[in-house]
Amino acid sequence: MSDQLIIFDTTMRDGEQSPGASMTRDEKLRIARQLERMRVDVIEAGFAAASNGDFEAVRAVAEVIKESTVCSLARANESDIRRSGEAIAPAARGRIHTFIATSPIHMEKKLRMSADQVLEQAVKAIGWAREYTDDIEFSAEDAGRSEIDYLCRIFEAVINAGATTINVPDTVGYNVPEQFAATIRTLIERVPNSDKVVWSVHCHNDLGLAVANSLAAVRAGARQIECTVNGLGERAGNASLEEVVMAVRTRRDIYQCDTHIDTTQIVPASKLVSGITGFPVQPNKAIVGANAFSHESGIHQDGVLKHRETYEIMRAEDVGWGANKLVLGKHSGRNAFRSRLIELGAAIESEAHLNHAFARFKELADKKHEIFDEDLQALISDEAVTPELEHYRLVASCFHSETGETPAARLTLNVGEAEVQAEANGSGPVDAAFKAIETVAKSGTELLLYSVNAITTGTDAQGEVTVRLSRDGKVVNGQGADTDIIVASAKAYLNALNKLHGKFEKLNPQI
Amino acid sequence: MSDQLIIFDTTMRDGEQSPGASMTRDEKLRIARQLERMRVDVIEAGFAAASNGDFEAVRAVAEVIKESTVCSLARANESDIRRSGEAIAPAARGRIHTFIATSPIHMEKKLRMSADQVLEQAVKAIGWAREYTDDIEFSAEDAGRSEIDYLCRIFEAVINAGATTINVPDTVGYNVPEQFAATIRTLIERVPNSDKVVWSVHCHNDLGLAVANSLAAVRAGARQIECTVNGLGERAGNASLEEVVMAVRTRRDIYQCDTHIDTTQIVPASKLVSGITGFPVQPNKAIVGANAFSHESGIHQDGVLKHRETYEIMRAEDVGWGANKLVLGKHSGRNAFRSRLIELGAAIESEAHLNHAFARFKELADKKHEIFDEDLQALISDEAVTPELEHYRLVASCFHSETGETPAARLTLNVGEAEVQAEANGSGPVDAAFKAIETVAKSGTELLLYSVNAITTGTDAQGEVTVRLSRDGKVVNGQGADTDIIVASAKAYLNALNKLHGKFEKLNPQI
Repeated sequence: MSDQLIIFDTTMRDGEQSPGASMTRDEKLRIARQLERMRVDVIEAGFAAASNGDFEAVRAVAEVIKESTVCSLARANESDIRRSGEAIAPAARGRIHTFIATSPIHMEKKLRMSADQVLEQAVKAIGWAREYTDDIEFSAEDAGRSEIDYLCRIFEAVINAGATTINVPDTVGYNVPEQFAATIRTLIERVPNSDKVVWSVHCHNDLGLAVANSLAAVRAGARQIECTVNGLGERAGNASLEEVVMAVRTRRDIYQCDTHIDTTQIVPASKLVSGITGFPVQPNKAIVGANAFSHESGIHQDGVLKHRETYEIMRAEDVGWGANKLVLGKHSGRNAFRSRLIELGAAIESEAHLNHAFARFKELADKKHEIFDEDLQALISDEAVTPELEHYRLVASCFHSETGETPAARLTLNVGEAEVQAEANGSGPVDAAFKAIETVAKSGTELLLYSVNAITTGTDAQGEVTVRLSRDGKVVNGQGADTDIIVASAKAYLNALNKLHGKFEKLNPQI
Repeated sequence: MSDQLIIFDTTMRDGEQSPGASMTRDEKLRIARQLERMRVDVIEAGFAAASNGDFEAVRAVAEVIKESTVCSLARANESDIRRSGEAIAPAARGRIHTFIATSPIHMEKKLRMSADQVLEQAVKAIGWAREYTDDIEFSAEDAGRSEIDYLCRIFEAVINAGATTINVPDTVGYNVPEQFAATIRTLIERVPNSDKVVWSVHCHNDLGLAVANSLAAVRAGARQIECTVNGLGERAGNASLEEVVMAVRTRRDIYQCDTHIDTTQIVPASKLVSGITGFPVQPNKAIVGANAFSHESGIHQDGVLKHRETYEIMRAEDVGWGANKLVLGKHSGRNAFRSRLIELGAAIESEAHLNHAFARFKELADKKHEIFDEDLQALISDEAVTPELEHYRLVASCFHSETGETPAARLTLNVGEAEVQAEANGSGPVDAAFKAIETVAKSGTELLLYSVNAITTGTDAQGEVTVRLSRDGKVVNGQGADTDIIVASAKAYLNALNKLHGKFEKLNPQI
């Protein structure tokens, strides 16, 4: 049994399935580059058969990522697997991850198949996958509620068929550590040739136990953990990558294994994912929360800070806190700007693209003294919207609010090719701006969420606004950043409308 | 061994020690009422010796709470314990919780006492506490890194001296479940008279294992868990109350015990604490996150939703989701308003107070169609600032921003008794408003955090702004709500300045 623990990141697959966390192809590329920089072993880039957009995103990631294995999820059917195989074809190392439900309730109610039929289908799936790669992962969906004898049978069969990683998901987050560890231990003991494969776990956090269940499985012999940045994922999310990695590293005495992860890339990854999805990280989140390494002391300051080990078991700098400081200012040149963008993992697709971004940077530098990495990230995000997808665009705006009067907004918008004026009043200037946009867009959407975070500290910080809109069950997030919060809000609303404009159907599997 | 698990909430003590989460006396009273409604067994209301403000807050909670035990923390010295005893004196049931460090590093570096001296001090502390109550909890600070033989000795001594609850904290969040459970099991086996006391645990979440460690301890015989709403607490926080309670309830088959908690009060408690502290709850937080019970489906909707048990292990309504709906509108009368406030746990201190709040409600109803519970909570929050503490107050405002011009703010403020005009430009209207305020206040503070959340959905929602300011190491949060986000921002900034104005020194213990 190896003492290396494989980190399988599913931020862009299970994470993306969170309502409101869907990502564009370009956003996925930025995250993938950061995951590679962090030295994640396997990147699950999506579910290629879900939609053409998903296929393109997985393929794009497979094209640029060289150090990590790139994986696509696939149901255990021929067309899903062929689609995944094509998507990962360009990868230096590609994996197909196929799954089928094995719990009585799922087989009966969802698949309407007998246990024997499910087993046969799983074996066939491995066969199709082998036409594309030797790196094949098999998941037994809802394994946490499956019968152990049946799990042993199906795992034996897929190992014989050529699966190289066997994943045991706790799909509904119902398991607790001791019991989950016992399941993994039993499987490894009972399944023939279990030493020929890597055992993997995929835990959900519905009861707050995803990380603990994953770690308990490691003690029972699992050597791959599926996890996500910030614990993103369906419902209460998956095991959080940063907690898993730091628990294993901090308590090597207990877990007797380690990962390849460059932990100093953890906080930058957390900020990137939070920025792209618009999901805030609560201050008291372990490792990546703003307060995770800070003490409000008193008793504490009484001479104790000299002995850091008294209260600290990890160092903030080891997980990447404090690494991102002031980088550029108003006098920074085009070359400094370009190299910083490259360090941040941005893809500069053409000189025109760079010139446009640089002009936006100069504009921002006029309004704001100090430009931080986070400002650049926001700027790249804005740039990442490819112009052909930008149906609505803000040209100019004017807002006025005064005690005793109704707040008013007057906007100039580009809609397709045309320039349009829009005006409205509202209960506040943001409401007025949204209403003005709706006089033109008539989108019929509902506003589910509106939030603002200052990207950096200081009163001249840019506000990054997230707007979540829904229509007919589709949910999109829009982001906009500006030093003027009302302008940022209008941009975010338009960004969401643009995404809705180009949005297509997709499938989200449950494992 | 009882099959009842005691829930000890320390949101107002350890939770309050998070940087930026400090609470006023009135905020503590609102949280305490909600905890009582949720049927928390023990409410740790503060650390009475920390400051006069803390003493007053503990005493105020002790005066109004009838169903839950009210507890104050105290170091193991005479003056701390007497102060705690006085603070809990009015309580129907009062507890003193005293602690001292027992790990070699803490005894040597912090206390500069020998192990025997520490033991002697602990026994004396129990003696002082017995002058006030028979309900005495003893904590061994940093027990997770203490020697087991010494822990047995000191626990035996304090049990003989009269301690009724023995708490084992993992102060630095270094423990993992199997090992922590083994510690608890060993202590219960080895300490004489261990069956005469309740064994308690207090876990920190630095490695993401606070809930798992607490639950592992329950399987080892612990019957009290110290936890906080939303997992608030120093650094990465404490075990999250909602996760502990729902794990035990959902997996009664494993944990063989249950709590008294009315779980339908969990989401309201989470929202209240999040609103008061300004700490957002991330969407993928277990139980209380906005996505915790939602699925973005596809495969999933394919006939499966009919069988809810396929993917759900808990019901959203059981933890209080969906309970708070539209309650009041513009035509609601004073009586409806008053009874809703009482249901929400607001203390209506006088007719004048009610009249003032009702006038504010009518103003809001003019701007906003539908008034939700969350709007009322925000309104009460605003009201809760007692006028004598309100040094700065916003009287009127005017904001203008336009493409190509510098955003401008013009404010009329009350400062003490005087009315003052203030004007400034800024990089956005919020920046302009803050700069205008600073032309008057000259506070010398630094803005650490600025965030906005819409209180409800819909474009006419009120924005609730949180502003975190720091000066000389003191950190305060200000909140402001309004349908106009710039007005809400100005109110939040002034609220923070008012808190800084009345802020005094306090101590924060580490356990």
